[in-house]
Amino acid sequence: MNIRDLWLIGIGTGSKQHLTHEGEAAIRGASVILIPRKGDHASDLFALRCDVLKTVGFDGIVQTFDYPSRDPNLPYMQRVTKWHNEIARRWQNAASRVSSEGPVGLLVLGDPTLYDSTIRIARNLDPPPCVTVIPGITAIQALTSAHGIPLNTLAGSVKVTTGRRLRQDGWPHNIETVVVMLDNETSFKTLTEPDLEIWWGAYLGTSDQLLMHGTLPEIGERIVQWRKEARKRKGWIMDTYLIRKTRSA
Amino acid sequence: MNIRDLWLIGIGTGSKQHLTHEGEAAIRGASVILIPRKGDHASDLFALRCDVLKTVGFDGIVQTFDYPSRDPNLPYMQRVTKWHNEIARRWQNAASRVSSEGPVGLLVLGDPTLYDSTIRIARNLDPPPCVTVIPGITAIQALTSAHGIPLNTLAGSVKVTTGRRLRQDGWPHNIETVVVMLDNETSFKTLTEPDLEIWWGAYLGTSDQLLMHGTLPEIGERIVQWRKEARKRKGWIMDTYLIRKTRSA
Repeated sequence: MNIRDLWLIGIGTGSKQHLTHEGEAAIRGASVILIPRKGDHASDLFALRCDVLKTVGFDGIVQTFDYPSRDPNLPYMQRVTKWHNEIARRWQNAASRVSSEGPVGLLVLGDPTLYDSTIRIARNLDPPPCVTVIPGITAIQALTSAHGIPLNTLAGSVKVTTGRRLRQDGWPHNIETVVVMLDNETSFKTLTEPDLEIWWGAYLGTSDQLLMHGTLPEIGERIVQWRKEARKRKGWIMDTYLIRKTRSA
Repeated sequence: MNIRDLWLIGIGTGSKQHLTHEGEAAIRGASVILIPRKGDHASDLFALRCDVLKTVGFDGIVQTFDYPSRDPNLPYMQRVTKWHNEIARRWQNAASRVSSEGPVGLLVLGDPTLYDSTIRIARNLDPPPCVTVIPGITAIQALTSAHGIPLNTLAGSVKVTTGRRLRQDGWPHNIETVVVMLDNETSFKTLTEPDLEIWWGAYLGTSDQLLMHGTLPEIGERIVQWRKEARKRKGWIMDTYLIRKTRSA
């Protein structure tokens, strides 16, 4: 089959509590669900997706596909483009092994529109499918709700960025709160502003959830250590954090 | 009763499809739900919250309270602080009319951590209750999913801000995407950068949903008109939009 209808289904943290009615209905309504097998933390995230299907009572076809790896010798943009093309090809291949022409679903951790590539990858499919995006609770929301804090200060602005960009751009101008995602290098270490306060979380929304909060000078090093230990223990880590100036909170 | 357990329940756009399992369970589990009666668009939003309760099958006590108005003669911060204090007092009053000591819930449109004051207001309660925050799908997510676009550009940063701050701060440095909320003055008109593209949405997630997308020079004025007409027709409007440079998309 070609992929005619592609449903990118945000499943939040993967915990059933964060699943929306729309997300659940989409999973149940899909004919085929594609599940990637990938990387270091393959087995945990694979199991998590299978658990979601089981919890919801999905009785359609599950197709797995191996995630390609990126070519480290290519420049960044070229590397990502080639990688996205290859993933699209593998979606198509996985779907072509199925005779159904019904909707194909992908379970996206968090929300398909936030630091996730599925929308971009879908643009590489030929013929182009009709894409439906179903929002899910993001790691940012799991972080702020677990800490019980507002994302923004009163009438303030928020910057959402990556670890790489935080290292590159530093503390922003005219913005009170910074949220950092996809940061494998605890890039907050590079910040030199005084009076920064950090709210950190890992494995958010799962039974392994870790939370830490304090001023950056006080707990920055402890987060680095804790993160290293957690990663070693589980084999992988997904974490995110929010930083603001203490005075602005 | 005093409020011992306060549950701030994100209900997303108010549509059942955006309600999470956790949100639904919290509504069902609350002893009392407080519902505000406020402002211009009082009746629609009041009805929306009642509909959510009905859909979920809430069979506890509903307590309504009148929303106070802000004192326009006070400076901004003082005005907001006084207003938050008064709202906390009204929550307390509404709860005190009930003999139950069970959890008190508030239905928050979107997510309680994003441009919402309930967490801050809760800090004014005395004695301080145990506050639980339950995330909900935000207007930003309803916007990006309806348009089928990623929030961020590839490896890019996002600024989330208000209309007032957009007018004040202008286009940000080192950030590819800007999302604007709480903007009653279509503040995008003040942007002078070339090549800006806008994705706009109003009444997101409801049957009245409006969407528009194009370059700012092409459709900016049309959005201003459309917004004015919609507001007149319904008596109120809630909208949000995302802007980025065309080249970076």
